[in-house]
Order: sequence, then C-alpha cells, then structure tokens
Amino acid sequence: MNNVKDSVGSNQNRSDDQLGRSRVKDNQVLEDYYSELEGVHTGAFWKVANAIEPWEPKALSEPVVWRNEVLRKLVLKSLDLVSPEDAGRRVVYLKNPKRTDVSAACGWLFSGLQVMQPGERAGAHKHAASALRFIMEGKGAYTIVDGHKIDLGARDFVITPNGTWHEHGVSEDGETSIWQDGLDIPLTNVLESNFYAVHPEGYQTVTLPENDSPLTYGAPGLRPELDKWDKPYSPLMKYSWDQSYEALLNYSKVTDGSPYDGVIMRYVNPQTGGDPMLTMGASLQLLRPSEHTKAHRHTGNIIYQVAKGSGYSIINGQRFDWKEKDIFCVPTWMWHEHVNTSSSEDACLFSFNDLPTIKKLGFYVEQALVDNNGHQLVEA
Amino acid sequence: MNNVKDSVGSNQNRSDDQLGRSRVKDNQVLEDYYSELEGVHTGAFWKVANAIEPWEPKALSEPVVWRNEVLRKLVLKSLDLVSPEDAGRRVVYLKNPKRTDVSAACGWLFSGLQVMQPGERAGAHKHAASALRFIMEGKGAYTIVDGHKIDLGARDFVITPNGTWHEHGVSEDGETSIWQDGLDIPLTNVLESNFYAVHPEGYQTVTLPENDSPLTYGAPGLRPELDKWDKPYSPLMKYSWDQSYEALLNYSKVTDGSPYDGVIMRYVNPQTGGDPMLTMGASLQLLRPSEHTKAHRHTGNIIYQVAKGSGYSIINGQRFDWKEKDIFCVPTWMWHEHVNTSSSEDACLFSFNDLPTIKKLGFYVEQALVDNNGHQLVEA
Amino acid sequence: MNNVKDSVGSNQNRSDDQLGRSRVKDNQVLEDYYSELEGVHTGAFWKVANAIEPWEPKALSEPVVWRNEVLRKLVLKSLDLVSPEDAGRRVVYLKNPKRTDVSAACGWLFSGLQVMQPGERAGAHKHAASALRFIMEGKGAYTIVDGHKIDLGARDFVITPNGTWHEHGVSEDGETSIWQDGLDIPLTNVLESNFYAVHPEGYQTVTLPENDSPLTYGAPGLRPELDKWDKPYSPLMKYSWDQSYEALLNYSKVTDGSPYDGVIMRYVNPQTGGDPMLTMGASLQLLRPSEHTKAHRHTGNIIYQVAKGSGYSIINGQRFDWKEKDIFCVPTWMWHEHVNTSSSEDACLFSFNDLPTIKKLGFYVEQALVDNNGHQLVEA
Amino acid sequence: MNNVKDSVGSNQNRSDDQLGRSRVKDNQVLEDYYSELEGVHTGAFWKVANAIEPWEPKALSEPVVWRNEVLRKLVLKSLDLVSPEDAGRRVVYLKNPKRTDVSAACGWLFSGLQVMQPGERAGAHKHAASALRFIMEGKGAYTIVDGHKIDLGARDFVITPNGTWHEHGVSEDGETSIWQDGLDIPLTNVLESNFYAVHPEGYQTVTLPENDSPLTYGAPGLRPELDKWDKPYSPLMKYSWDQSYEALLNYSKVTDGSPYDGVIMRYVNPQTGGDPMLTMGASLQLLRPSEHTKAHRHTGNIIYQVAKGSGYSIINGQRFDWKEKDIFCVPTWMWHEHVNTSSSEDACLFSFNDLPTIKKLGFYVEQALVDNNGHQLVEA
Repeated sequence: MNNVKDSVGSNQNRSDDQLGRSRVKDNQVLEDYYSELEGVHTGAFWKVANAIEPWEPKALSEPVVWRNEVLRKLVLKSLDLVSPEDAGRRVVYLKNPKRTDVSAACGWLFSGLQVMQPGERAGAHKHAASALRFIMEGKGAYTIVDGHKIDLGARDFVITPNGTWHEHGVSEDGETSIWQDGLDIPLTNVLESNFYAVHPEGYQTVTLPENDSPLTYGAPGLRPELDKWDKPYSPLMKYSWDQSYEALLNYSKVTDGSPYDGVIMRYVNPQTGGDPMLTMGASLQLLRPSEHTKAHRHTGNIIYQVAKGSGYSIINGQRFDWKEKDIFCVPTWMWHEHVNTSSSEDACLFSFNDLPTIKKLGFYVEQALVDNNGHQLVEA
Repeated sequence: MNNVKDSVGSNQNRSDDQLGRSRVKDNQVLEDYYSELEGVHTGAFWKVANAIEPWEPKALSEPVVWRNEVLRKLVLKSLDLVSPEDAGRRVVYLKNPKRTDVSAACGWLFSGLQVMQPGERAGAHKHAASALRFIMEGKGAYTIVDGHKIDLGARDFVITPNGTWHEHGVSEDGETSIWQDGLDIPLTNVLESNFYAVHPEGYQTVTLPENDSPLTYGAPGLRPELDKWDKPYSPLMKYSWDQSYEALLNYSKVTDGSPYDGVIMRYVNPQTGGDPMLTMGASLQLLRPSEHTKAHRHTGNIIYQVAKGSGYSIINGQRFDWKEKDIFCVPTWMWHEHVNTSSSEDACLFSFNDLPTIKKLGFYVEQALVDNNGHQLVEA
Repeated sequence: MNNVKDSVGSNQNRSDDQLGRSRVKDNQVLEDYYSELEGVHTGAFWKVANAIEPWEPKALSEPVVWRNEVLRKLVLKSLDLVSPEDAGRRVVYLKNPKRTDVSAACGWLFSGLQVMQPGERAGAHKHAASALRFIMEGKGAYTIVDGHKIDLGARDFVITPNGTWHEHGVSEDGETSIWQDGLDIPLTNVLESNFYAVHPEGYQTVTLPENDSPLTYGAPGLRPELDKWDKPYSPLMKYSWDQSYEALLNYSKVTDGSPYDGVIMRYVNPQTGGDPMLTMGASLQLLRPSEHTKAHRHTGNIIYQVAKGSGYSIINGQRFDWKEKDIFCVPTWMWHEHVNTSSSEDACLFSFNDLPTIKKLGFYVEQALVDNNGHQLVEA
Repeated sequence: MNNVKDSVGSNQNRSDDQLGRSRVKDNQVLEDYYSELEGVHTGAFWKVANAIEPWEPKALSEPVVWRNEVLRKLVLKSLDLVSPEDAGRRVVYLKNPKRTDVSAACGWLFSGLQVMQPGERAGAHKHAASALRFIMEGKGAYTIVDGHKIDLGARDFVITPNGTWHEHGVSEDGETSIWQDGLDIPLTNVLESNFYAVHPEGYQTVTLPENDSPLTYGAPGLRPELDKWDKPYSPLMKYSWDQSYEALLNYSKVTDGSPYDGVIMRYVNPQTGGDPMLTMGASLQLLRPSEHTKAHRHTGNIIYQVAKGSGYSIINGQRFDWKEKDIFCVPTWMWHEHVNTSSSEDACLFSFNDLPTIKKLGFYVEQALVDNNGHQLVEA
C-alpha cells in the first residue's frame, strides 16, 4: 500500500456504485432484518462498509497556527494563577478547533506551553505516554528523567520516554523558562493504555553525575564500550541546539535537500539509528533563503515550531504565515509545502510527529503533488 | 512501565488531592482566564490533566458472548437478502454494546460472520486494514491474496495482510461456507490511515500454482533456499487446522502450559518467528479436561472463537459460558480466566488480538491476580 | 563485492604488470632494505602484495568423493578396536588430500562417520565448536543436548550448537547406528577460539520430557506463546526426515526450483527464520528424474551426503559419480552442477556448509557460468 | 560458552586421561587400521581429538611492540626506493615473529605504516578485505572511497570497507604523510574469500562534494531524513580526532570507566550503533594519570597504537613499555592490563581488533583475573 499510485491516482473510479463497493438498496425486508440484527448486538456490514472503508484517509484535525505573541502572554499570566505544586504542570495546551472530544493539538498528539520560575520544581510522576520538549526561552531549567538530571537551554530538544519517572524545574539562579511540551497522551488513551503514578517520595533523588546522558551519548560516531543501556528508547535524552544546528549547516553544504522539506534531519537514538522514542519522532529542517519546497502529503500528523526565521506554509490550499516560536500543525494526508520568505537568512523548523507509530503499523503512505509543477493553488 | 507493581499495586495512593496530581480549585479569576484561553484554541492543562491521565486504562468495550446458534441463523438468512456482488461482502458484524460511534467488536477490532454459497465470488479489492479469517463450516471455499489462491477448510486460519488484493469465493462443487472475519478497520480509521481500492479488472487473474503459499512455507524448520519474500507480513497465509491442532497436542505432551491460558501457541510468520501481520496477532490454545486457569489482565483486546469443546470464562468477575463456535471478547485490562467444564475432552480456543500494535508502541502491561489463589470472585 | 561482474569477468586484465598491482623490480639496494626490515619484525608490503591479494579465491581443498561402501566397513571395524569410553567418540574422519596441516574434510569443516552399538554411551562434554549429524542407519540412537534428550532415526538432521553439553548413545534395545558428524572444529581452531570441557558428572541427568525440543518447536507456523528461548541458535534441534522430505515434495509441486540446485530448502531456526547455528548451515535438495542443473560457483565450502538416489556432480570440470550415502565435497569458488541419472526416481542431497560464516563477514560472492549454456566441459 | 567459569576455572581437571578425552593406547592392530584409513583419505578421530580440541585457545601470535622511532625512519627511507605507481602502496608491514606462513601482525590482522609525499597518488583498486587507517603525521592527505573524497588529519580514524573502490593521496600543497593501515587480508585469505580488482580507469572520478560523508553523518543524534544508505558498513567513513578525543573527555567526566580499559569508547556506525565494518572493530581509550587497570583476557586479537602519552602494558606476565605512536599487539586469550606512567597527563590508546568476527560467530569469551587483586605477576 505504500505505492499509492493505484489507490489514490486520479484515474481511480471512486463511485460507490460499482462492483467491489456496497450498493445494496434499502427495502422493508432488509429493514426488518437490520432490526433483528440490532437486537443481538450485530449489524449488516454492507450498511456501513462504504463509510468505514473510505477511499482515502480523512483527517480528524484541521491545520492551525498558534501565535507565540498570543501564547506567551497567556502562559506567563498563569504564573500568578496557579503553582506547579497544585497544577502538576503549569501548561497552556493547544486545542485543535475540529476536535471537541479530546485534548489534542493534531491527530492523537498533545502539545502545550509550560512555564516555570526560578526555584520552582514540580513533583515527579510517570505515565505510559511519552513526552518531549523544545525549549523556547529561559535559563537554568532542568529535567530529571529516571535519575538523570539534564540542563536545558534555548532550542534544546529533550525526551521523556514512556514509563520513566520525570520532573522539571528551574534553578534558584535561573530565569523564567518556557518550553513546548509534546506528548502522545491522546494516542495512549485511545489505545486504552494509559497508566499514571506519583513518585512515592514526591521528588527523585539524583545520584548520577549531572548531564551524564549527553556527556556519554552525545558524541558523533562513538559509543561507550560498556554500553549496558537496554531500554527501547534513546539513552541520549538531550539534543543540544548548538550541535543540532551545526549538523544541519554541515549537511546543507553537501546535499540538495528534500524537494518537500529542504535540508532535513531526524533526531535519532545513537544506539540504534532509529527514532528516539517508540511512538513519536522529531526533526529539524532548514529552509535556505527564498527556498520554496514542493508539495507532498502522507499519513501521520506533524506539529511544527519555528526555531528560526519566518515564512509560510501552504496546507491543503490554505496559506499559514509563521515566524519564530509560532507553532502550527499539518494533519494527516494534507498537502503541504514550505516557504522561507527571507532572501538572506535561513529558516529552521523544529517538528515532532506520530510517524514511528504510523510506520510500525504499516500505515505510512506518501504522495507527491504532480500538477502545477508540484505547487498547490492557494485559496483566495 | 511493564512492571506494573508500583503503578497498579494496591498500596498506591490514588487520591487526586496530592502532589503530582492537579488539585487547582476553581475561582472567578481562573474562569475568566479559561474563557480567554478558549478564544485562541487553547486550554488550561490542569483542568483536564486528571481526566486524560488516568491511574490505569479504562476499556472502551465491554465483554460479550455472541452465540453461534443465533449468529448462524442470521447470517444464513442474509443469503436470500443480498448478493456478494451488491453487498461486497455478505457479513453480519459484531457490535460491542458499549460502542455506539464505531463498528467495533472489541477495542479497535472488527469482527463478523461471512457466508458464501457454491459458485459465488466477491469482487477483488484492497485496503490499508489487515484481515484474517477462521473457517467455521463448509467445503470448497477459497481465498485469493495477491494472486495466491488458497483452499480453505474448517478451522483453518487464513490471513489477508494490509494492502494486498484479495477476494473470496466458494467453488461450484463446494458447500455453503461460513467463516469469522477479523479486521483492524476501526484501528486503521482511528489512526486516520485507511485507503480502499477496487481491483481494476474486478477479479484477480491467478497464474501462480494453487496453494503455493502453504506448500512452500508450511513446513516445520525448512525454508526455500531462494526465498525472495520481502514483505513485512507472513508468506505463509494459511495455517491448517490439522497441523495446528497436532502442534498443540504435541506441545501439550512436554509443557505445563501457561497458568493463565493452558497450552497456548501463537501463529507466526515462518520467515521471522514474529506475528503474521503488523497489527494483529492470533493464537490457539488448549484447555485440558477440567482445567481452570488463573486470572491475569493486560493491555490489548482479544476476540475468541471456541474451536472445540465447551466451558466458560470469567471476565472482570462475570461468568460467560461458551461452546463450540461461540465468539466472545475480553477487553483491555480486564481480569480473565478460562475453564474447560468437560472432564474428558479438551477444549480449544482460537483467538485474535491487537497485541502486536500494543507491544510495538511500548504499551503492553500485564498483571497476575494474586488474591484468592489467583481466582476472581464471580458476581451473583 | 557480491556483484562479481567487474572482479571476475573475463574482460578483466589480470596482469600483475599494471598500475594498481605491485611491479617493483628487485635490486641490491632493495635487498639490503629488506634485510633491514626483517631485523625489526617488518617487511615490504610490495614484495608480498600480489601474493596475498589474489585476483580471486584459491581453494585450500580439492573435491573428493568418499564411498559409503568403503567408509561403512572401516567404521564398523572400529567397533572391535576402541570403546567410546576410551575413544571419546568412535569416529572415522574424512581427510581432504590437499590438507596436510589440519583435520579438515573441506575448507575449515570437519566431517566423519561415527558408530555406536546398543547400550553404548559416550561421556558428556562441550566445546566452542558447533556440531551437526545426519543419521545414516540404525535404530534407538539418541542425543542429549543441554539436558534435551532426542531420539534419532535414519536421515534425521540434528544439531549440537556451540557451548552445549552433549552426549550420544544407543538404547539397549536399539541397533548399531552410524551417522555423519559435521563440525567447525578447524574453523574454531584457526580463529583461535576453541574451548573444551568434560562434564563434571561424566554424563548429563535428563529431567526434561523426552523429545521436548521437536514436540515444542517442530510445528509449521506456530510457536509457544511463552517462548523463553534466548540462545543464538535454534531451539528445534532435530529435523525429522519424514517431515523434511514431505516439505521438499510439497515445495516441488509449486516451484521451478533453482537452476543450480533443483528444489532446495534450508534447515532453519523456527524462532528467527535464519540458520540453525551461528557458523554452519544445512540444506536438503531434490533433483527431479533426469534433472541436470546448471553450473555456478560461490565462496564457501559444502559437504554433501546422498540421502536418496544416484547421479553425479561436475566440480571444476571433473565428474564425480555418487549414490546413496556417499559423501562428497565442493570447495570454495569451484564450478559445480548436479545430475540425477535416474529417469524415474528423484535424488536427494543433504548438505552442510560454512555459508553463515562467509555471509556474516560479507565474503559471499556467487557467479553463474554463462558459457556453453551454463554447463562445464568435463575433463576426459 | 561465554560464561567461562566451568571451562577455564582452575578446578577443572585437565588431564587427558579421563572419560570425555581420548585415551586410546597404540598397538599394532590399531597401527594397521590407521594405515588402512590413510589409504582412503580418512583418519581415526581419537588419534587427533585431544590435539584439535584443546582445553582453551592457544594464540598463533606473540605480543610485540614496534617502536615508532624505528618504523618511522624505515618507512621514510622507502620514499626514495619505490614509487606508489610501482609499489601499489608504499607500506612497511608488521610481521609477528611467531608467524612465518602469513603476513600478519597479530591473529589474522595485517598492519603496516604507509607513507606518501605531496602530489603522490596511488591507483584505485578494491578487494574483499576491509581496511582502516589511523593517521600519524602529515597534512593534505586524502582518501577516496567509492567516490567519496575525505580529508585526513593527524589521529583521524578512517575506514575503507570491503568491496569499495579506494585510493589515497596527498595534495600538492600538503606534507609527507604517514599512517597506520589495518586490514583483514589474512582473515580474508584463510577464509578463501579474497578478490582483487584494479579500477578500469586507474583512478576514480570524484563528483560528490568533498567530505560529504563526515558532513552528513558526523553529527551526534541526527541523521538525514532521506537516508538511502543501504550498505552493511558505516556511511560515516572518517572519525575526526578532535571530536573523538572530546567525546572521550566528556565521557570521562561521568563514568568510572572499565576496570580493564579505563575510559573506553567504540567507533560505531551511526546508522546502526554497531561496528563500522563487518569484520573489524576499533576503539579509543583514555587512561587517566597514574591509572593502572586490572587484567582480563578474551578471545580475539587487538592491535594498539599509542595516540597520546606513555606507559606500559603487561601481557601474559611480560611488560611492554610504550610511548606516542608506538604500536603493540595483544594476541587472543592473553592476560593484559595497562598502565599510564604519567601522574599528570592522560594517555590514549587507539586500537583495532577482530572482535566483530569473533562475536558474530559466537566465539567471544572473556575472563577477569581474580588472583592478586586482578594484577599479573611480571616476569623478571
């Protein structure tokens, strides 16, 4: 199914009135039959077949941009309203306007902005959901994941894999810090698999050397000889901005990049070369000055944060302008292309997604737009 | 998280009024703040946190038994009501009473009974959803999967992996045949990934030798030297009852079996030893005469068909009696134990499940019942 | 390197007098220099380069047939000469005429015929070398591998993986039994890795049910749900002739077979689909009546035993006739093709090889003979 | 077999006069029998069994130190004696004194020092053997591997995997450069698998951007989104000294290190986390000021180059002093421990080994020295 030509090509007859689709006409005998079925917790498949077997996926979410200038003020306002001790986490979360039944930003992904002040510290807990963070501003923030304490700076990418004890804080001599959280809580719930636990001592005791994770695993092409890490997620829990941006610049010198994404790299588990966590992936991409990518679409949902620069994306024919620290999403199977509007500066997009979930289950399909030289027509 | 002791143990304080849970009290200032958030597609996480981060999973489905004596009559009745050409597939599907929004038997699994008469043949199609079948009665039934034609006999287990062209029929000299279908259509839809296509010629042309799949891959401990199979699912598409039941009998001679499931084996891809398809697994288990297993619970949903014998299962304290060809389900995280009520005959349960999905995403958790020597108290 | 076209093609200039080969001419100054190097445990690479970097592999062994009519008498004679208690194993081993420095039949593979009488039992030991057996005649023979006792019948294939305690015997009511042993002792030695240990109690105590390995793992397409096997070799230790031959017959109905080997299947680890042991593989192949395969060559050594029928093989232009129970070998990189001389009966070849070693290290190269319609010219 | 306790423990009775070993006494009847066997290319296993099944491995090589002050002068001398065009590669290779039949430095590993002058360029070729280099001095050196051109600086580690076209040179404005070559030529030959080919055009044409390999894959925790690399070896072909040494320093801040090797890391394939090539591995280790490690031994051979500092190693009771750029080897199954004799500076050892070969074949065994607090007694 990953070659979509014959399933999504324009020459496919998509009438439901053909052999291979359900085209049973209603009549009284059938109605009576349906009632009989209903009475014993059953139904006639041909009544629902066309609805539950659509020709192609229909996104549950709609594309949205959340402006940093709006979000930042609101999340800072919460500082005076609730404490981390009472709120658990002081997070303003993003609600996709099309989703009323679930707290999701896009697909089955949750996202929000969290804020903490110097000296604050939230209690430790764990859950089956996985979490990641992209730091937006501040100094002295840290996270503690299963006893590994890690310093966080602006634009660092950090993971909190499923089932790990974790807690966050800002040191006494730090600055008010804001970061974007990304979690698969909605996925974990829809798959009926969420667990939650509060740390028995309230907070973790740190006995390991600080930053042992990045100092041990944050090197290119080298791993400890005695690597006893046996978890299904990355032992490298922080991907620093400086190293990541330099990687992107280096790579940009020797690649033409992707036609759809410019110069793009994935954050990976250095132990396996695969995604850092089981359910969510993350990428960093660079759009060169004036770069305008071509459109493609694929299954899976993506949530972006603008790490650098400004531009716009066209999503299913609609233009969404963005600048640094804005957040936007591209729902499943929607055409999308990106534009860096600066002719002198590069633009960088951080993003996270549910692609590891989609790919592990064999659900990944991708399609390039062929018409109009690969570019969408933008709605007026 | 797969060691559940500290997350589900009885000594866990599950009050929401503690550090690590959200315990913010409402007031007017907060109400105003919430309204402000609402206006820009955001929300306060602490308002929903406890709800979306439950202490443990809550099943979307309830346990049900569907009686063969009821289902069989109803599905045979459909023979006179609709043709396979019009209905696509003549299937009476199982609706979990607790699910109103989705055509699911349990969790995100679909199941139903399909019936076809001699000479009938349904049109070929494909979809992103995976399918499997367990034959209940009849002669001369066949399936064609990506050009591989396979004969089907009673209690054979057959797979139709995602993205494969497939069609079913019964030969002119066969008998009316009934089988249970199992699909992950609901999962595919909830993950926004379903595609559907009708075969351009209506039906597949078979050029490969009949039964090439079981004749090539259905041997123990041997594989073709020139194995070019490169698909992510099993090249063995039919697991015959005779071989499978004999395997179970052989294994039963040398094992004590599982405390929770008796003598149980998984259907596997002979090329990898793993599950035959990416999203769903299937098992066959034998309960020895008078065997009464202990209770455990785990994430993931299971749908059973009684392949042989009679007995009952206790699911979350409720007793469900079953006999041959009855179908029942065990929703996620519900305690379950099985009983063979015959003191002389063995009982066999065929089952399929979503465990490959749950396990790939790191969501598998299992817990044994420790109280009352591992047995549930049955509700009056 | 697995595409050999440009490395072994006939159009390759193989003169050593060209750029890219060493073509330094000797003179007195160089001679003096070489002496100086010699004195400090060094040498000039260009002096040996052409010799140690040949254009293509040169086999260490030559092709041989060992006749069963000769071997059988000799091995039976040993019954009166030595006891298993004194000899350890009563084995007549095969010596490749070209190898004087090592006890190898072909390449770094050892092979021999072992004989045991009813009531005999050899002491238990283990070694880093892996072993396999193909039973030639007798009744009541058994092997015990790490406590798993397994009955052996004619033409069964059995493995004794590296590092396992093992011992063999024939029951009191059995018959004198002969089998072919295959081991990688020479490989283990040349790679400086052999260990040997005698069982502290002399013999193993068997507490597991007899034949638990084949009864648990000898089924097609099914594995125990609770499979705790975590060894790097197959949990299935016996591949019975009846099942294996039936597998070959089934497969022959739906395949054209390999142009070089007829209908050929590999013995595999049912847990992984890979080779049963880390260093050696084994195959069973069927040559249909009058079948004459085409010639190819590849790196890696093969030792064959004729399991059924009669015919001949052409190895590097030389004809080697064989009939049931004869043993012959094909050394690395030698052209070989096989002929079944019967026009009515099939012929079967059992074989074992070092291909898992060769392939794991990236050394596998294969080439088809293109001249003369793929057939070798036979030397007069 | 990887738990060596019962196979190498001191309490093992290693007499050959016990059940489980061959203890047949010679006599005339046996002598006649042996002659008869000899005549038909066979032998009696019990005659050779104890010899070919030793209690533990016996190294083919002996430990040696090659002094840089000696080697450097000799290899520079070759500049005037042969040209790269005639010699192929101007290499002075290391000959283990115990090996007379093969050009090996240790085990089945080849090593040598290569020298090239500004403007020199050797012809392109390929072979089944894998190669690696550790740069010792010079500027402007480069390698071209399958069209990827890479700059080489002092103490960089570079790979040339098996089957790749490769050539080396020094740019016109560079300096005379010396590096250590490591190859598995002896292994490739002993396993009868070596192929050699001269590039049809003499030299490769470089069309890829220079240093595309390290610029693409030399980043920590990030990989190209569009990674099409499908080779069984690392796409990262150069591991720069600066990054590698920094990695070691970072890791040293948060680890106690290995008791046997100090702070030690492996060079890895960033795509898999595994060894960079199929047959050979490489490591970099740091011995802290005055560090004296404990002794262990294991199967597999190691060749070291001192990258920094000075000290000594004790190998099977013999002391070998070393300082920067010296090369020494530790043969299989020999006890070894390392000492940094400086009380203020760290010492670094680069090393390469055949451990990937040994481990893939299941031959890896390791043992710690327990007596004398883990330290060997040094021979006078």
